[in-house]
Amino acid sequence: MSTLNRRIVLAARPQGAVKPEDFKLEDVALPAVGEGQLLVRNRFLSLDPYMRGAMNDRKSYRKPQPLGETMVGGTVGEVVESRNPSFKVGDVVVGGFGWQTHGVSDGAGLRTVDTRQVPMQAYLGVAGMPGVTAWVGLNRIIAPKAGETVVVSAASGAVGSVVGQLAKSMGCRVVGVAGGTAKCAAVINEFGFDACVDYKAGNLEADLAAATPNGIDGYFENVGGPTLNAVLGRMNAFGRIAVCGLIAGYNDEPMPVTRFNAVLLSRLKIQGFIVSEFPDAWPEALAALAAGVANGSLKYRETISKGLESAPQAFIGLLRGENFGKQLVDLG
Amino acid sequence: MSTLNRRIVLAARPQGAVKPEDFKLEDVALPAVGEGQLLVRNRFLSLDPYMRGAMNDRKSYRKPQPLGETMVGGTVGEVVESRNPSFKVGDVVVGGFGWQTHGVSDGAGLRTVDTRQVPMQAYLGVAGMPGVTAWVGLNRIIAPKAGETVVVSAASGAVGSVVGQLAKSMGCRVVGVAGGTAKCAAVINEFGFDACVDYKAGNLEADLAAATPNGIDGYFENVGGPTLNAVLGRMNAFGRIAVCGLIAGYNDEPMPVTRFNAVLLSRLKIQGFIVSEFPDAWPEALAALAAGVANGSLKYRETISKGLESAPQAFIGLLRGENFGKQLVDLG
Repeated sequence: MSTLNRRIVLAARPQGAVKPEDFKLEDVALPAVGEGQLLVRNRFLSLDPYMRGAMNDRKSYRKPQPLGETMVGGTVGEVVESRNPSFKVGDVVVGGFGWQTHGVSDGAGLRTVDTRQVPMQAYLGVAGMPGVTAWVGLNRIIAPKAGETVVVSAASGAVGSVVGQLAKSMGCRVVGVAGGTAKCAAVINEFGFDACVDYKAGNLEADLAAATPNGIDGYFENVGGPTLNAVLGRMNAFGRIAVCGLIAGYNDEPMPVTRFNAVLLSRLKIQGFIVSEFPDAWPEALAALAAGVANGSLKYRETISKGLESAPQAFIGLLRGENFGKQLVDLG
Repeated sequence: MSTLNRRIVLAARPQGAVKPEDFKLEDVALPAVGEGQLLVRNRFLSLDPYMRGAMNDRKSYRKPQPLGETMVGGTVGEVVESRNPSFKVGDVVVGGFGWQTHGVSDGAGLRTVDTRQVPMQAYLGVAGMPGVTAWVGLNRIIAPKAGETVVVSAASGAVGSVVGQLAKSMGCRVVGVAGGTAKCAAVINEFGFDACVDYKAGNLEADLAAATPNGIDGYFENVGGPTLNAVLGRMNAFGRIAVCGLIAGYNDEPMPVTRFNAVLLSRLKIQGFIVSEFPDAWPEALAALAAGVANGSLKYRETISKGLESAPQAFIGLLRGENFGKQLVDLG
């Protein structure tokens, strides 16, 4: 007996902005579950900015997404058949099955999670890779001291909102940068930042200056572009910048950094990082994040689109900043 | 009795490129040497790119050079009168008397040097601040491993030539970037680099790629601009960039960094630094550098202009890259 699997493959490499036609929906038969394997019915798919980079065929920190193959991505789902003694039917597992409804695996890379106090999809966001990304960039690169000012771009997002809450708990002044009054209001009122700059309001430089009267000691960079330049102009001596994402440049738009001389003037440290390259940090980070979700101290937002078919449009919206918090696809 | 002192003061803040009229030569009387003080006849003045930044009245890592006051700068000279028991007539001292023929001091910040095996002016270059700058950027920031590729811009200069020789002694492949065939020939033949890219030849990107077949692991940045962008395109994963100078941008020309996304793609660390902020490194670095000069293993070049009056033009030439090696002024 084989299972029908619905999946989305990369049909074409994007020329500039991602279009729906760059993807293709397919129904294919899954192979039978062999000895030592298990079958997972994916329940949620995570959409993340890194996927845009993977769609290009060029030097990057990950291999290009092959054409005609299932789009990569993190998933959480239920074990529906198991011939592997480490997993039983009904287990909820986090893995990387990509943009598809089902997956067959030998169990490598799968992690069983406890959903009694943490919703399963939170393991794709605040208590998963995005949360750990926030934790690593903040603790391992920015390493802020109490009283310092930390700025976070994409502050209402899955990573940024966690960065801000963690930095606030460390005694920092925390300033977000987000797009639109609704996001900025949530950054302050829901996530507890001290201030938020709405970059869409047209006064990025002046508003950032007003929100950071003592300058900026740490910056968690999710976007690049004008926000990075504005921040560079406010950095204090010995400031640290953790570069997690540069979403503004993914579509090949030129994104020149005009204030690079701040690196010398303020003796900055800038470090790009990928969370998967800090494996030693994961256990501590995951435990802290799940505890924060379970006890309600760590807030998060999700934008959930319905059905695998909705994934391309939801992903395009993510790249445009239309989501609010963690972008998920409910696979049913 | 007072001594006549010839000095050069900052007459005007440069608008764009530095002009001779931005400086003014003056003859003034020195105060008498008081109890605990000493009088130094400066023999050599060091000219360095940082002085350009000090001429601006804006946020920088050092206070602006005041208008109408003696230009700042490192000097080496002889004690000609002393009422300070730590110094005796004939001692050779390194200090920061600036652009003038004499200086009176209480001894603070002065260092007596041994000129038996190291020429006095070398303490302003290879065995002084520029040498320590090379040592700190290489050992404390780039920290290369044997077999890695290290690139140095302004490779024939006082700092760059030392960076390359030290990196070579650590087992690295060392590639310089310099302007013109004569400088590139010296970088290879005198300073022992493995290769040198002549950025004036018009093929910077292709020539750099050819010279770094295994990519670039460490970059010692002295110039900024197109060289930085070319290097960013060749950086290997986990590469380190020590930012020591950005001479190309000192005159307010825009110097956008177009390949900043390499920071994320290659998980780079970039750090700006000022050698005076690594005081713990100086004793070890100075000892190693002076030993290299004394035993002949550390090569260096000097460009020496004659007379204090020649300093403005020599400084303008330095900013244009017309000097070769350490730029000094022989004060007679």
